[in-house]
Amino acid sequence: MTHKIAILGASGYTGAELVRLIATHPTMEIVALAANSKAGLSMADVFPHLRHLDLPDLVKIDEIDFAGVDLCFCALPHATSQAVIKELPKTLKIVDLSADFRLRDPEVYAQWYGGQHDALECQAEAVYGLTEFYRDDIRAARLVAGTGCNAATGQYALRPLIADGLIDLDDIIIDLKTGVSGAGRSLKENLLHAELSEGAHAYAVGGTHRHLAEFDQEFSAVAGRPVKVQFTPHLLPANRGIIATVYVKGDADAVYKSLSNAYADEPFVQMLPFGQQPSTRHIRGSNFCHIGVSGDRIPGRAIVIAALDNLTKGSSGQALQNANLMLGEEETLGLMLAPVFP
Amino acid sequence: MTHKIAILGASGYTGAELVRLIATHPTMEIVALAANSKAGLSMADVFPHLRHLDLPDLVKIDEIDFAGVDLCFCALPHATSQAVIKELPKTLKIVDLSADFRLRDPEVYAQWYGGQHDALECQAEAVYGLTEFYRDDIRAARLVAGTGCNAATGQYALRPLIADGLIDLDDIIIDLKTGVSGAGRSLKENLLHAELSEGAHAYAVGGTHRHLAEFDQEFSAVAGRPVKVQFTPHLLPANRGIIATVYVKGDADAVYKSLSNAYADEPFVQMLPFGQQPSTRHIRGSNFCHIGVSGDRIPGRAIVIAALDNLTKGSSGQALQNANLMLGEEETLGLMLAPVFP
Amino acid sequence: MTHKIAILGASGYTGAELVRLIATHPTMEIVALAANSKAGLSMADVFPHLRHLDLPDLVKIDEIDFAGVDLCFCALPHATSQAVIKELPKTLKIVDLSADFRLRDPEVYAQWYGGQHDALECQAEAVYGLTEFYRDDIRAARLVAGTGCNAATGQYALRPLIADGLIDLDDIIIDLKTGVSGAGRSLKENLLHAELSEGAHAYAVGGTHRHLAEFDQEFSAVAGRPVKVQFTPHLLPANRGIIATVYVKGDADAVYKSLSNAYADEPFVQMLPFGQQPSTRHIRGSNFCHIGVSGDRIPGRAIVIAALDNLTKGSSGQALQNANLMLGEEETLGLMLAPVFP
Amino acid sequence: MTHKIAILGASGYTGAELVRLIATHPTMEIVALAANSKAGLSMADVFPHLRHLDLPDLVKIDEIDFAGVDLCFCALPHATSQAVIKELPKTLKIVDLSADFRLRDPEVYAQWYGGQHDALECQAEAVYGLTEFYRDDIRAARLVAGTGCNAATGQYALRPLIADGLIDLDDIIIDLKTGVSGAGRSLKENLLHAELSEGAHAYAVGGTHRHLAEFDQEFSAVAGRPVKVQFTPHLLPANRGIIATVYVKGDADAVYKSLSNAYADEPFVQMLPFGQQPSTRHIRGSNFCHIGVSGDRIPGRAIVIAALDNLTKGSSGQALQNANLMLGEEETLGLMLAPVFP
Repeated sequence: MTHKIAILGASGYTGAELVRLIATHPTMEIVALAANSKAGLSMADVFPHLRHLDLPDLVKIDEIDFAGVDLCFCALPHATSQAVIKELPKTLKIVDLSADFRLRDPEVYAQWYGGQHDALECQAEAVYGLTEFYRDDIRAARLVAGTGCNAATGQYALRPLIADGLIDLDDIIIDLKTGVSGAGRSLKENLLHAELSEGAHAYAVGGTHRHLAEFDQEFSAVAGRPVKVQFTPHLLPANRGIIATVYVKGDADAVYKSLSNAYADEPFVQMLPFGQQPSTRHIRGSNFCHIGVSGDRIPGRAIVIAALDNLTKGSSGQALQNANLMLGEEETLGLMLAPVFP
Repeated sequence: MTHKIAILGASGYTGAELVRLIATHPTMEIVALAANSKAGLSMADVFPHLRHLDLPDLVKIDEIDFAGVDLCFCALPHATSQAVIKELPKTLKIVDLSADFRLRDPEVYAQWYGGQHDALECQAEAVYGLTEFYRDDIRAARLVAGTGCNAATGQYALRPLIADGLIDLDDIIIDLKTGVSGAGRSLKENLLHAELSEGAHAYAVGGTHRHLAEFDQEFSAVAGRPVKVQFTPHLLPANRGIIATVYVKGDADAVYKSLSNAYADEPFVQMLPFGQQPSTRHIRGSNFCHIGVSGDRIPGRAIVIAALDNLTKGSSGQALQNANLMLGEEETLGLMLAPVFP
Repeated sequence: MTHKIAILGASGYTGAELVRLIATHPTMEIVALAANSKAGLSMADVFPHLRHLDLPDLVKIDEIDFAGVDLCFCALPHATSQAVIKELPKTLKIVDLSADFRLRDPEVYAQWYGGQHDALECQAEAVYGLTEFYRDDIRAARLVAGTGCNAATGQYALRPLIADGLIDLDDIIIDLKTGVSGAGRSLKENLLHAELSEGAHAYAVGGTHRHLAEFDQEFSAVAGRPVKVQFTPHLLPANRGIIATVYVKGDADAVYKSLSNAYADEPFVQMLPFGQQPSTRHIRGSNFCHIGVSGDRIPGRAIVIAALDNLTKGSSGQALQNANLMLGEEETLGLMLAPVFP
Repeated sequence: MTHKIAILGASGYTGAELVRLIATHPTMEIVALAANSKAGLSMADVFPHLRHLDLPDLVKIDEIDFAGVDLCFCALPHATSQAVIKELPKTLKIVDLSADFRLRDPEVYAQWYGGQHDALECQAEAVYGLTEFYRDDIRAARLVAGTGCNAATGQYALRPLIADGLIDLDDIIIDLKTGVSGAGRSLKENLLHAELSEGAHAYAVGGTHRHLAEFDQEFSAVAGRPVKVQFTPHLLPANRGIIATVYVKGDADAVYKSLSNAYADEPFVQMLPFGQQPSTRHIRGSNFCHIGVSGDRIPGRAIVIAALDNLTKGSSGQALQNANLMLGEEETLGLMLAPVFP
């Protein structure tokens, strides 16, 4: 049986990544691609790397007949997404890749995203899309909220450690480095090649990045008490990939054991041998997350480093993984593509 | 039915690329991986991006029992390959990715590669592996000689034009730009990141690059008379991708029509609309070749630009395409992976 | 004696490059920096790499008192420049970096730049700024028109050959590769890091790039007859640097001798030994142009490859070289900075 | 008066960077360049970007007559340096760029560098070359030991804070990202372009990087008690530049004030406005260090980020700054080159 798929926001990088992945997915068929600003164009006009595919042309969202759609990926900008989703049929399965439905508390949403949520009833039913930790809920969900790509990376490194009570909850630092595609295909001076190539810098320093809202929500829930981490993202001169270097106070062997147990049966989260470290180049273009653990010369400290591809495991691959579950398919279907190296 | 596959030279980039592609190939199983210098290591030690795969450890070539192998990819360095292949079972299907069996004339081989060929009887039976033009021979072949990656790119742009008699055969210029992975995983000062990043330069200028031997052999055969082209390769600060800008004297519309006809039914060679140009970023990681044609303000001149991924369509993808034919499979099986962009 | 310098268009890359160079120039002092869209900001706000300098804040052009200015660099966008320059004091020395005053024939200007020129009397007095070939005129000029960066590169490779009558004037191909900073600090999707990194493509193929107007004008003047070349620019995944691979029909030894003679006493144009080739990485950040010559295996053909930094020798360094002459200084003053490698 | 300069180890990146800087230094003249493995070659053969300079050819070290040398830069590999320096004339002024003379305690040296020091009497007289903090000693020194590039970056961020007693000495984390040129021009697989481009990874995790020995020595001396930091270096896909993100426990405003006071009169260390962050692209090719400070949403925590060019301020620029002092010149002479951006 083939599932009919629509993608809203198909002219952005996460939209294109969904198309790339679904291109070789055996039981999904793309029946509608929407991008309001580029309606009328073919996908090959907007993304020439997809020209070999037989795809529907881009249309406006309100031109889509959702009656013939089994599942809709919504890859629209933050805030836009909620306005669109609340108007979609209430029976339509939806995986949203924006930030609009990640936060369960409307007040927290308002605080981090600067305004009241416009689709509170959808927000109430949304399931947080970190597959490995919400698998059963996702299988039963109608609306899944994809996680932030940075938020996913940090959580893979930390959730088991918090759950197992292994680390000092008041002293967690996530120093994260990300490729530029996470910022999307937006016309900003600081995303120009000439501005970024051969350079690196931190941004949103000191606790202002919105993915902190996800960390706060999730880590506090796992811990059963408020947890606040320090989080510093940096922009790398690379297109894809996130690497998070996480500093914790706890026993490194116990940390390694906790993570190894947590991910022993996970198809996409791979523990490296103790003392080895991941690289973004080894997960590029794939749905895998590599995690390494090292102790420090200072006893009682451990460094956990997690790497994933922000466009794949950090957003569109995760979305497809969730969609597989929602549609009753094998979770890994169409997602076992090996990383592209070099 | 599953075909048992061996890869010799698995510790190089083309070997790793074969493993990447076969990882999601539905009817091939890797049963042996050889790399003499790294025998005893796991593939994850040598290529951490492949750590999610259940692969045999690296062994020495003479440790392999070829009785259980249906097809062998030979991704060894030039000259090494012939010595190995002549000792392999004479019934074993082989796709060789080196330069050792590309040239039909032993004297030409000796002239370009600096020594007598050591496996002349194998050379005599080898079929040149440019799939789109040797498909029937490849289907019946025991030993297929993969083409040079630059040689493939230039031929996609030019073979139909020569066959159709549309261009001046004495005035063809191929100005080619290639990513660095084409040079392999070899320890050379000029392949260091600090030497290459942010720079570009020509090499093998003036008719000294060995892929010219393939151009000479193939273009002369197509034309039925000697054809010598000018060919200048340049090294780009990028890992993957070749783009060949080909200057010909001929009518641009006729050139476009000839190429369009030649590739109308080809699954992997894509003609862009007239006047549009390809980019290496739009074929990265895939088996596709994109070709664009433009006229010039000077009447009677045309520019043909072809782009492909040197590791995929230029070597390992081509090899797998040929292996599919040799094993009686669909030519495209396992090869429809979409390009990875951005 | 210190010369008082103003820079109009200081918020662009060529403006910033002028400031970088003048920072260590011993006899120039920047007294005014204009950038209408960023007036009121400090230069450190707009270009943090210049924060160590004691510079005037950015102002609007009409806030500058030109009475205290000895020479004005105009680094404004094409078309904007002419409107500004015609209103400046008629005694002010000006080096314009735009395309507005490069073409001597107003009809040719209109044809390539899509409209009538708005400052014809200035156009009439402007001297073409290719220093090595217009040195005496530049010394006496009030208004110098900086060349196109691509146009400069191609001319260094070709002017002596045309002047010496060594090559077939009807069969010249310039295949040029340029870094992205040549496109300026403009918000265009195709200049984003995620669009360009790890890729390469041709643009303005077939005789449509505006720098062809300069090639036509200059080469025809040198030859004493109309000369039209083929010119294909490509965009490289690098910030700085142009490399032009020029295919000519002529004797390679004679070509080498001609260029060697022409540049024997030039401080900034360096001939490599015969058969060696330049790289953009070896001129980065400097005012040098490296030129290599090779013969081809086909007799009677030569390949000339020239490399320079588009922001330095291709625009701002050239502008400063010209300003030195106009102000009676040594031509090389402040310009002998060595290239930055790696 | 012109100082006669010799450079030992001129075929490496730091050697080349010294030549680049001295090229425009007004009172230094290079009289000897040594590189044992490349003796007999010209500098243009080894570093084509320096071909415009009139330089002595490369010789073996023992071919140099040090009687005519005022100051010698020693840019040899670690361990090699001590064997060479102990044989040089005892009156020769020397700036060593290796790690051989950085550590005052021979036992600590042996522990981190794996063997007994071979020139203990030189080690005893060597002055640590972090100019801003050892200025007077350097002025009087005969032998100055250049600092590690990472060690310099971390110390600029932390020394004033430790001296002023503002931070918790038991909880300092330096998460550092560096370009690849810091690893030198060495033939290692992990330094190939194809291995590094588009990727990022940590190395020497957990307290094993040798620059920790410098941190320990210096921070403990400043604090008057043992101080051990956590330090995780990462390799960036960029040629130049180090950025260190330093996490401390202390009041952010006090931290900012302390650093601002410490560097108020320093020509090369630039404090950004509070809350702004540096980028490696803004110091590239220069001798400047940019430092930014931010508070965190968690009270009592501060983030200090320092950026410098590893080849300039981190090694060869620092060496020249020290040489200026040792020769009685202005400390900034020849070093005010502005950063190269983009």
